[in-house]
Amino acid sequence: MKFCSVCGHEVQFVVPPGDNRPRYRCAQCGTIHYQNPTLVLGTIPVWGDRILLCRRAIEPRYGFWTLPAGFMENGETTAEGAQRETLEEAGANIALGEVFSMVDVPHVNQVHVFFRAELLDAHFAPGPDSLEVRLLAEDDIPWDSIAFRTVAQTLRWYFEDRRSGVHVMHTGAIRSASHRSAREA
Amino acid sequence: MKFCSVCGHEVQFVVPPGDNRPRYRCAQCGTIHYQNPTLVLGTIPVWGDRILLCRRAIEPRYGFWTLPAGFMENGETTAEGAQRETLEEAGANIALGEVFSMVDVPHVNQVHVFFRAELLDAHFAPGPDSLEVRLLAEDDIPWDSIAFRTVAQTLRWYFEDRRSGVHVMHTGAIRSASHRSAREA
Repeated sequence: MKFCSVCGHEVQFVVPPGDNRPRYRCAQCGTIHYQNPTLVLGTIPVWGDRILLCRRAIEPRYGFWTLPAGFMENGETTAEGAQRETLEEAGANIALGEVFSMVDVPHVNQVHVFFRAELLDAHFAPGPDSLEVRLLAEDDIPWDSIAFRTVAQTLRWYFEDRRSGVHVMHTGAIRSASHRSAREA
Repeated sequence: MKFCSVCGHEVQFVVPPGDNRPRYRCAQCGTIHYQNPTLVLGTIPVWGDRILLCRRAIEPRYGFWTLPAGFMENGETTAEGAQRETLEEAGANIALGEVFSMVDVPHVNQVHVFFRAELLDAHFAPGPDSLEVRLLAEDDIPWDSIAFRTVAQTLRWYFEDRRSGVHVMHTGAIRSASHRSAREA
């Protein structure tokens, strides 16, 4: 950020009075431009014992597999965003369930939230962001080709819980690009 | 938003190619300035049968009572943000527990997440954003003077669960400024 989006003047990166960290602040109109993490919303769409995964048609991670997910938009709820992404990326209609996982990714300023979901029927089709969409059993999950670690972690939690009969909400954090573990809170 | 924060040129509000909703897009450098909801993180700090509430020293809702909470910052996890806000607003050290509630507020593009928390000791003090901080029993909660509906809803859920012995995560939405109900998903 170099310029004020309100008045077009240059911004400074300074600690505003009464604050405790530097912000982008306009030297002319005084507007402070806060920058905050974004929410990524997704679902775990289930049909019998299989899970719906999408193969990405866009960067980052073109060609890799993901649960349907994307950035939350202004004006919608988390539930609406998760349903919208599932429809847009996988052409799938779902009954949305509870929050299943919330995974922090602080090095990219994101929080990923995945909801339980049941497909209402077996009709689905790749949207513009997906190369293909498939129902996959646990043994067929392409673990080496999952696009994002939040998705891989969520899938691992899901299958572990299904085996053990546990029903909880999971939280964790992906700490950095090189550190591939997740903390369960 | 009127000007591009990257190059300072005027922005247009248009649907970019391949997108399905209008965005602020720079007519000169082409940067698309996405706008997304922000996360507000807070805690329900418990000491025996009492809850720690803060009376706000800042607008909006100056003088009203709230659970310690504030905007998530870049570079931190949800758990870290909730602990930071509790320390900043109430001077309180806590053991953070599970996610208790996640409440959407789509008309202001926010999602509020509250964590269970136990005070580690009975030492606390108002930070710069608080007029006073108090431990309050359920009968002493100033229901007519709660700053935000997400806080009032979270407190109602908390006391209901404590009476009934239920232990779940709550989700809901505050739909508009005039519609004072919350949906439990």
